[in-house]
Amino acid sequence: MPNKENALLYARENFQKFKTELQNLIEIPSVSTDPNHVNDIRRAAEWLKEKLDQLGFQETKILETEGHPAVYGHHQVDPDALTVLVYGHYDVQPADPIDLWNTDPFEPTLSGERLYGRGASDMKGQIIASLAAVESLIKNGGSPVNIKYIIEGEEEIGSPNLPNALKKNAALLSCDVILNPDAGMISPEAPTIVYGLRGLAYFEIMVKGPNRDLHSGMFGGVVQNPAIVLSKLIAGMISEDGIIQLPGYYDTVENLTPEERAELSRLPISDADLMQQTGTKKLAGEKGYTSIERIGARPTLDVNGFLSGFTGKGSKTIIPSWAMAKVSMRLVPHQDPAEVYQQLTAYLQENAPDTVSWEVKQHAGGPAAITNRKHPGVKALSDALEEIWHQKPYFKREGGSIPVVTEMQNIIGTESVLTGFGLPGDNIHSPNESLHLPTWEKGILALILFFFNIAGGYEN
Amino acid sequence: MPNKENALLYARENFQKFKTELQNLIEIPSVSTDPNHVNDIRRAAEWLKEKLDQLGFQETKILETEGHPAVYGHHQVDPDALTVLVYGHYDVQPADPIDLWNTDPFEPTLSGERLYGRGASDMKGQIIASLAAVESLIKNGGSPVNIKYIIEGEEEIGSPNLPNALKKNAALLSCDVILNPDAGMISPEAPTIVYGLRGLAYFEIMVKGPNRDLHSGMFGGVVQNPAIVLSKLIAGMISEDGIIQLPGYYDTVENLTPEERAELSRLPISDADLMQQTGTKKLAGEKGYTSIERIGARPTLDVNGFLSGFTGKGSKTIIPSWAMAKVSMRLVPHQDPAEVYQQLTAYLQENAPDTVSWEVKQHAGGPAAITNRKHPGVKALSDALEEIWHQKPYFKREGGSIPVVTEMQNIIGTESVLTGFGLPGDNIHSPNESLHLPTWEKGILALILFFFNIAGGYEN
Repeated sequence: MPNKENALLYARENFQKFKTELQNLIEIPSVSTDPNHVNDIRRAAEWLKEKLDQLGFQETKILETEGHPAVYGHHQVDPDALTVLVYGHYDVQPADPIDLWNTDPFEPTLSGERLYGRGASDMKGQIIASLAAVESLIKNGGSPVNIKYIIEGEEEIGSPNLPNALKKNAALLSCDVILNPDAGMISPEAPTIVYGLRGLAYFEIMVKGPNRDLHSGMFGGVVQNPAIVLSKLIAGMISEDGIIQLPGYYDTVENLTPEERAELSRLPISDADLMQQTGTKKLAGEKGYTSIERIGARPTLDVNGFLSGFTGKGSKTIIPSWAMAKVSMRLVPHQDPAEVYQQLTAYLQENAPDTVSWEVKQHAGGPAAITNRKHPGVKALSDALEEIWHQKPYFKREGGSIPVVTEMQNIIGTESVLTGFGLPGDNIHSPNESLHLPTWEKGILALILFFFNIAGGYEN
Repeated sequence: MPNKENALLYARENFQKFKTELQNLIEIPSVSTDPNHVNDIRRAAEWLKEKLDQLGFQETKILETEGHPAVYGHHQVDPDALTVLVYGHYDVQPADPIDLWNTDPFEPTLSGERLYGRGASDMKGQIIASLAAVESLIKNGGSPVNIKYIIEGEEEIGSPNLPNALKKNAALLSCDVILNPDAGMISPEAPTIVYGLRGLAYFEIMVKGPNRDLHSGMFGGVVQNPAIVLSKLIAGMISEDGIIQLPGYYDTVENLTPEERAELSRLPISDADLMQQTGTKKLAGEKGYTSIERIGARPTLDVNGFLSGFTGKGSKTIIPSWAMAKVSMRLVPHQDPAEVYQQLTAYLQENAPDTVSWEVKQHAGGPAAITNRKHPGVKALSDALEEIWHQKPYFKREGGSIPVVTEMQNIIGTESVLTGFGLPGDNIHSPNESLHLPTWEKGILALILFFFNIAGGYEN
């Protein structure tokens, strides 16, 4: 019989062992961008498969893909019990710039309350936390739910092969809820559940004018300047109030309910925090919304890059032949990147002068994802976090995208519950990445409670 | 005794030799903007000094400046004879984008009637044409006038050190008329005298936002995008009707007289020609003026370059930390680059949002210049061109800038007569620059006649 108190006790008594396991995993430099680490990637995948085997998972395997492999495991306690699928990624960002590290990124080092090393927070620490919770269940009367794992090796390079792997293994991955611990916490005192992620539509606009760069003296006054045309087109895409002017852009965007606005306003992130984090002297954005709402719950339009003409030192008096801008939009639920492409094209058709030609290239993107806050998995997690932290968790809509969440929903047909025990000061993707161990230990306990809560309270 | 017929014959017999000399000069990549070419600049200056020595100039020297050196020469035939000062520049534009060239820009290549190479037309070809004419005089009874040369090495970077060099050497440079062959022709059949040149004001605008490139998901919606701000600022600088919106920009601009509009309308340049020359499908520019008027007699504003954020292949989801644009204006008489700087600054102060910071750097520029069409040098040149081409020359206001013309007038006190044998299709400042050799050869003959005409007909 699953025993919650014993499981919690077991976890507390084994923090040191779990930490050693995490150190062992960090020691494997599974950098997915770097072909020199392809063997390390494989080693990390095998390490995880072996760990699942040791825990008594009945089925474990390495799922080969066109790129780096994923690890799969299934621990079945009862065919009629609920099944929780845990998502993770074992690959890490490169350690560069390596000379800014105070310790070897792949020799995990304890200092005070923190464990330093690449991947300590993002997300080997989170994977080990979940495995520690699962071990605590299995060793103390068994798990109250069936547990599956999918741990990919390409998240840091955009999960290019995950959709195919999900499609090929959709039956294996069937589940009732997905736990994704790749999100983070606002602060050590503020457990956080992410229930929304923005989508992305990304375009490259090319405006072509004369057939070559022209002398701006000889032809200035008779030839349309493509950089001015593109500037005007971009200028027209967004009003002074930060409202995006593409036709129909907001048609499918839902208004925030007063209840959700109240919930978001609880988040302990101030404009001063955001100014400090970004080094800007004043924030900007869509009128009528708070900063938190603008980041998580409202769509945006940004120029990611702009190039035209002569950009070296000094002066060159030319009318450029072309101008190019990368323009992307963060999307909210019900916005479709394909429709946004149509809106952008319609805008350009309407506004581009006939003195130039233009084209738009669409880069990869995806729709937003949102988890129903009434989802039983959310409630199970919320209660678990509150019990450990003595603090009602914060519900947050994240500004970025985790395409895998949408892919899982589309392909496996299951919603994800997002949390995690990383902190803003963990320096993920930067030198001196570390994990705050007291927070991580609380996280292990909270995950044990989550599995019990969901087994008890889930109704489909 | 100077002998016109023999000089013309000598020139005709030595076109091949002159062309070889031009090729030798083009082979020296005297790119003035690029510090890597500082030795080539020096080599080009020494090459020219040696050439003047070989021609028998009694006094030649390299005039050192704070930047690249200028070449000076004086060939005196009679202290009481007229003195013509020939102006030139031996520096060239960078060859970028180099991959659009069909041949090596610094390995001059003959193809059909054209010689390809950077500087072939602008203006090494014009310098060699004048030297060929002078050689033809000297070798055939002597020159009918005293001849001086000043050939600078910084024209393509705005001649920053020429004014000082002119001031320091004003006595050396004293003369009765200046011949400046840095202007061009309308077509191979249309010899041209330029009596107006536009000025130039050139700026680099930097807009700074966050202290680093930011993740557009984490911060999209709360941080002002510097590329959008700069796009809006540029968009607002010029109306849809091509009217420049800087405060006070047109205050000193003179209206064109009906007589001058009639003269300009003689020019055999159609809108179809301009479209063909530039490869544009439709012309653009200030409403209410013909293309010829817009090029020569109306001020403009162009973006010469724009750079911000990620401009490589693929997508990177950032809010750029900064955006930079190079913006320049072609000026007409009575506009002052220093005042235009004030106008631009005032515009930015009025229009830039307080969510970003900005700065403006001023690159070299200069006021417009205009020559009296009744000047005796103009008559001497006009007759010479008509004799060779059997066609009355066209009087044109050039869209480009030759700040040196204004400087010479201010410092040496002498007006310049502007002509040249480059053609609109020469691709100056662009890839595949070339020189039309049959036109260039006629030019050499016409310059021989000019020296004789001015010796005979000049009255101060």
